[in-house]
Amino acid sequence: METRLEIVVRSTEIDVNGHVNNAKYLEYLEWGREEWYEQAELFYDTFGAMGIQTVTVNININYKKECKQGDDLTITCRPEKMGRSSYVLKQEIINKQGDLCADALVTSVTMDSATRKSVEAPEALRKHFS
Amino acid sequence: METRLEIVVRSTEIDVNGHVNNAKYLEYLEWGREEWYEQAELFYDTFGAMGIQTVTVNININYKKECKQGDDLTITCRPEKMGRSSYVLKQEIINKQGDLCADALVTSVTMDSATRKSVEAPEALRKHFS
Amino acid sequence: METRLEIVVRSTEIDVNGHVNNAKYLEYLEWGREEWYEQAELFYDTFGAMGIQTVTVNININYKKECKQGDDLTITCRPEKMGRSSYVLKQEIINKQGDLCADALVTSVTMDSATRKSVEAPEALRKHFS
Amino acid sequence: METRLEIVVRSTEIDVNGHVNNAKYLEYLEWGREEWYEQAELFYDTFGAMGIQTVTVNININYKKECKQGDDLTITCRPEKMGRSSYVLKQEIINKQGDLCADALVTSVTMDSATRKSVEAPEALRKHFS
Repeated sequence: METRLEIVVRSTEIDVNGHVNNAKYLEYLEWGREEWYEQAELFYDTFGAMGIQTVTVNININYKKECKQGDDLTITCRPEKMGRSSYVLKQEIINKQGDLCADALVTSVTMDSATRKSVEAPEALRKHFS
Repeated sequence: METRLEIVVRSTEIDVNGHVNNAKYLEYLEWGREEWYEQAELFYDTFGAMGIQTVTVNININYKKECKQGDDLTITCRPEKMGRSSYVLKQEIINKQGDLCADALVTSVTMDSATRKSVEAPEALRKHFS
Repeated sequence: METRLEIVVRSTEIDVNGHVNNAKYLEYLEWGREEWYEQAELFYDTFGAMGIQTVTVNININYKKECKQGDDLTITCRPEKMGRSSYVLKQEIINKQGDLCADALVTSVTMDSATRKSVEAPEALRKHFS
Repeated sequence: METRLEIVVRSTEIDVNGHVNNAKYLEYLEWGREEWYEQAELFYDTFGAMGIQTVTVNININYKKECKQGDDLTITCRPEKMGRSSYVLKQEIINKQGDLCADALVTSVTMDSATRKSVEAPEALRKHFS
């Protein structure tokens, strides 16, 4: 399952160079992941009820093309790889002309909320990666 | 009691016009108020233990002078006026040359955390306004 | 002419209290004013060609109701008052249930880009206030 | 040459989970790189006078430990690797207890400002990597 979130670049997201700052791309990616978790019916409370939290441990992002105020962007998110407790989501930021502005691999870990140790990812999450 | 917080304007706080964006000033003011509450020993938990929350209901800010990357700024905060449940803090943003970059009046209300109705401000807060 | 911009509250716009931070409301208002200037055909370059810049000198905002992640908000903007060089825009933030979350008066001044002194507002701007 | 920038985590940098959001770490890293470029006397204008711009093409960040409001953090930056036109800076975010909160490799490219093609990194930059 791949999700696609449509956003518009806003004035306060532009830096002194007239384009979206590198840190703001990570906010866009997070918004795109929220969309994925929501459509996967993996809400914060869903994990909470299992005594699990997910924690982002690595983000590896390639910046390909600048984005400017008013740009219509699509933020994609899809499952890439599942380990025992860690999993990778693949994301892209694409503009209206179809140019790839950035792509990223985001690695997260499922953690026991109480002990804060990594635990095996639950089936509810795992099934999206098969 | 007036508090003074020293900050440095960072690169990601600058907008396309090369100066600090108007919304970012409100973040600076909040950092300055946090300093005041801390020195007044009015921590989030202090209010919580009284079953009280404070809520910002109005900010009236005058923008006087632009701030740029690397500027050393002082964010001041001092009590201005106390009502029954509402109180006003006066804040200023001053640069190294002593120029007033912005001033603001920030009005907050003390609220019962459970009923979410306004309640009389506690003495612990009130005493700073006499 | 009143403009209405529709936005969705994103995860990174939420603070530790679980609602939109007071500074972020000012970003929302700026996005709403950009929409107004655009529909009024008053682009940054339009003013630039007249040797004019607009500068925000005061924002007076009332916080009425909290906003949360996923909320659909409408940011309105309409002319309120025109002086010689200063003018006031009235803005509101309204949620899907029709609740007023915030209202604000935003005062700006038209300035000569070269001398950086205030100058009479141009007719292109002035006509929207009659 | 390694630079160390000291910062304090501010209230508006905290997300709903009570810790610094993953995107904000990238702002911290940028502040740390600005410090390095400044101490290396590689100002924006220095590159500009050579007809060169630097562009970030990849950030690979490991999140190790959460940061909270009031935390005193040190943001380090040091040269890691130099290619023909691309170079890598190594950065760390360390808290007061000496815990590594994040580390990152940031890859940038030197680009001809006019043609926007990559060009060989100038000696002024290259010498810091030997």
